[in-house]
Amino acid sequence: MEEKVKLSMLCEFYGKLLTKKQFEFIDDYCNNDLSLSEIAENNNITRQAVRDIIKKGEKKLFEYEEKLMFMKRTLNQEKRIEKVLLELTKIQKDYSDKQISNVLESIKKELNCLV
Amino acid sequence: MEEKVKLSMLCEFYGKLLTKKQFEFIDDYCNNDLSLSEIAENNNITRQAVRDIIKKGEKKLFEYEEKLMFMKRTLNQEKRIEKVLLELTKIQKDYSDKQISNVLESIKKELNCLV
Repeated sequence: MEEKVKLSMLCEFYGKLLTKKQFEFIDDYCNNDLSLSEIAENNNITRQAVRDIIKKGEKKLFEYEEKLMFMKRTLNQEKRIEKVLLELTKIQKDYSDKQISNVLESIKKELNCLV
Repeated sequence: MEEKVKLSMLCEFYGKLLTKKQFEFIDDYCNNDLSLSEIAENNNITRQAVRDIIKKGEKKLFEYEEKLMFMKRTLNQEKRIEKVLLELTKIQKDYSDKQISNVLESIKKELNCLV
């Protein structure tokens, strides 16, 4: 997984445990694609200060994931559900019975809410 | 949900973010069903000290859940998956086709890993 993407995902999971600044800067860097210099300019601080705040936040995010593993678990779970969805679609194709197709559709809808 | 059960579940989710003592005492209290006095005796400290450590840990667990909501999300997800499992069992009963029954069984097995 690309590093920025991973950081952005970790921030989605654990961002509420960061300080406001850590969250904002990581969000700007990963999701709004701003450079460290741009973030520094927007906040009237040095590029090095921005870098330090991001690094500190990043370290916390990785520590939370190491302990709690919510991201890993969620990604595994999504993979399993996607596999199930594929199997359901396969059965739908093999069996043209309208009633069964409707039930399978409703199950897929339910499962799609989980990924 | 009974309070001890809730505390025990929160501890399963966020226990790794507690101190060793907080985790141990909450575990003893909720899962091993020890009284505060028994925990105090086992650890050669006062009942009040045990109570303070548990209360502090409990407060942290509730704060983590308030921010991250992993327990709430997981319980909702399990509810949805259980609903899907019930629907799958219903289709299995309605359709005696052996091939479809096998596929549904494998899907159920997959989903059962998620609850």
